[in-house]
Amino acid sequence: MALIVHKYGGTSMGSTERIRNVAKRVAKWHRAGHQIVVVPSAMSGETNRLLGLAKELDSNANPRELDMIAATGEQVSVGLLAIALQAEGVKAKSYAGWQVPIKTDSAFTKARIESIDAEAIRADLNADQVIIITGFQGVDPDNNITTLGRGGSDTSAVAVAAAIDADECLIYTDVDGVYTTDPRVEPDARRLDRVTFEEMLEMASLGSKVLQIRSVEFAGKYRVPTRVLSSLTDPLMSLEQEMQSGTLITFEEENNMEKAVISGIAFNRDEAKITVQGVPDRPGIAYSILGPVAAANIDVDMIIQNQSVDGLTDFSFTVHRNEYQKALDVLKTQVAPAIHAKQLLGEDKIAKVSVVGIGMRSHVGIASLMFETLSKENINIQMISTSEIKISVVIDDKYMELAVRALHKAFGLDAQ
Amino acid sequence: MALIVHKYGGTSMGSTERIRNVAKRVAKWHRAGHQIVVVPSAMSGETNRLLGLAKELDSNANPRELDMIAATGEQVSVGLLAIALQAEGVKAKSYAGWQVPIKTDSAFTKARIESIDAEAIRADLNADQVIIITGFQGVDPDNNITTLGRGGSDTSAVAVAAAIDADECLIYTDVDGVYTTDPRVEPDARRLDRVTFEEMLEMASLGSKVLQIRSVEFAGKYRVPTRVLSSLTDPLMSLEQEMQSGTLITFEEENNMEKAVISGIAFNRDEAKITVQGVPDRPGIAYSILGPVAAANIDVDMIIQNQSVDGLTDFSFTVHRNEYQKALDVLKTQVAPAIHAKQLLGEDKIAKVSVVGIGMRSHVGIASLMFETLSKENINIQMISTSEIKISVVIDDKYMELAVRALHKAFGLDAQ
Repeated sequence: MALIVHKYGGTSMGSTERIRNVAKRVAKWHRAGHQIVVVPSAMSGETNRLLGLAKELDSNANPRELDMIAATGEQVSVGLLAIALQAEGVKAKSYAGWQVPIKTDSAFTKARIESIDAEAIRADLNADQVIIITGFQGVDPDNNITTLGRGGSDTSAVAVAAAIDADECLIYTDVDGVYTTDPRVEPDARRLDRVTFEEMLEMASLGSKVLQIRSVEFAGKYRVPTRVLSSLTDPLMSLEQEMQSGTLITFEEENNMEKAVISGIAFNRDEAKITVQGVPDRPGIAYSILGPVAAANIDVDMIIQNQSVDGLTDFSFTVHRNEYQKALDVLKTQVAPAIHAKQLLGEDKIAKVSVVGIGMRSHVGIASLMFETLSKENINIQMISTSEIKISVVIDDKYMELAVRALHKAFGLDAQ
Repeated sequence: MALIVHKYGGTSMGSTERIRNVAKRVAKWHRAGHQIVVVPSAMSGETNRLLGLAKELDSNANPRELDMIAATGEQVSVGLLAIALQAEGVKAKSYAGWQVPIKTDSAFTKARIESIDAEAIRADLNADQVIIITGFQGVDPDNNITTLGRGGSDTSAVAVAAAIDADECLIYTDVDGVYTTDPRVEPDARRLDRVTFEEMLEMASLGSKVLQIRSVEFAGKYRVPTRVLSSLTDPLMSLEQEMQSGTLITFEEENNMEKAVISGIAFNRDEAKITVQGVPDRPGIAYSILGPVAAANIDVDMIIQNQSVDGLTDFSFTVHRNEYQKALDVLKTQVAPAIHAKQLLGEDKIAKVSVVGIGMRSHVGIASLMFETLSKENINIQMISTSEIKISVVIDDKYMELAVRALHKAFGLDAQ
């Protein structure tokens, strides 16, 4: 008997017919003797519908109230799935985030999970019930409803799996696993049977949309074995088949000589870059620039500061495109005057393309092959940033697909 | 400065445009210096949509899960209204029932309010905020979400008004007050400026759908001055005009010689009657019959037992038509065999018509005028039940409209 968490996305929950299919799959696992916790998203389209109503009233609506509204989507899902499971003859009970409780901070619309009290869940699991918990949401210290931001249900699922010490967390989604790159951009992309946690973390943070990044962080921090697999298969397929499908996120490097140096090419065009030019190169300057940005609750991704010339340097960073204007405003009003910056430059027509692979730790020449490949395609590199297992470049967004395909081929990812 | 509770029904909350109108009206009250708590219903159609989804999965769905699902309708409403008020420049904050908390028992889909902790609301009111609380719902001792049943938002509003000791509870609805009878049945029906609590209680319990009965009970128990008025008027009309519109529920009989003996004719065709025939006339028999019915959570309305003949009597009662089959089943399987009843008779094509008026306490001849009127129209009376201020008869439902019009005329209710 294993303790398993299932997560189903909005498409899988998109109609009562599909919810019935989810119930059939969950019931199969339960009948095989496993304890099951399910974390479903809102029915597809529902979150957008709800936030659309709010936007009709005020395009800049209060985030606490947005969370109050948006959280109802998942609450409906858990109730419906409980009813569908009961109709399958399985005992089931739904929980809203605050009922568990899943405790978060108070950053409305992008809250972070702080703790999960698993006591009530455990008791219900031991009473042979399937437990269904709202994804995407929790409750803050003042009893306000919070949401984790888009894609937050993945995070909820992995966090719940960690809290109850689950044997595996199965993320059912509308793709059948993690690919070497997005098949819509490169048709020769291949599904990976396994990917290390660190690679997955880089790929998620670099824009591969299979899993929300915070869910991968949770999976890594608490070592939750997590599998991404398709919810579009026959719900009654054998458990053995199901456990061999998808992509498993592992926590150990495998000594596999055959393994490619690079696991995948990640990309996104959700970002914008901002450069603060002519900044005095003195201690505390980075904090003077990014402190106010962080205080405005804007996430910063890449940060680049180069060697100074004549005591002045240029400081660049990227933010989500949705927060580009807000970030520029903060810099204009709070930062630039205070530090006497020469000027602010910004650009939101950019894309980030990255090669990711744990193998690059022990291989040289990855960066030069990447730069050579882009050079051959005549693509100019605007920014470069590296970590131990990835190299990212920022380029003009119109070259993004071309860059992805060229790199996928250059690193031999389309080979079997 | 007064402390006022506003309640808005689903029609008033039916679109973002209408929610904006509600916000304008609330903002007007707030700007005039009053403290305001608003209790809105779900957007019209939403509760049916949600319960319809549940029904697609299981026509006999678990009531706890139905409440989990249905409660989201009001949660969306409070968030949207808070946003609309903020857009009007008014500080506003929404509360779900469990956040107040509004504590109820655990009778899912028909829970009763047990207590309301008004501390948090008071603090927020004193911080100059308009407070918006979900109608229709609460939380039980095990932290499960409960709903109060259809129309429960009226009850929530009056209960909140009692808990915070409000000066008045204004129930905004799609009719402009309480009428001598339903104007769709009798076009000459007149709006009453005032009605006593006891008359209102009888009229609500007798099927006049303006206010939910439990809300009237709360209003009476805690002496909450409650006004029924239209939400379809200009939201910016003067407060003086607004306070003269609608119907005020009062707690004192007025010494008004002009006041009609009868205030109104109430009716409903939501009931069914059941007769247990040939019941031994011995102590405890009524409990033997109605105990199992109550245990099945079925509400009983009229109860009639006549003088016994040869130690046997007939025991009749009415229930809501939706619970007619369930009640019959309980009687067939649990009651009839145990008490050796001769037979069970049932009929659901009935209507109940009642004359209501606090004036009948001091007038004789009301019953005989009622029976004479029905006799003249050749309408057979199947059951009769009386209280101090009302007389109800059960008749064939096809004569209902005819009976209402004849009685309205006979008691002079269409006169000015």
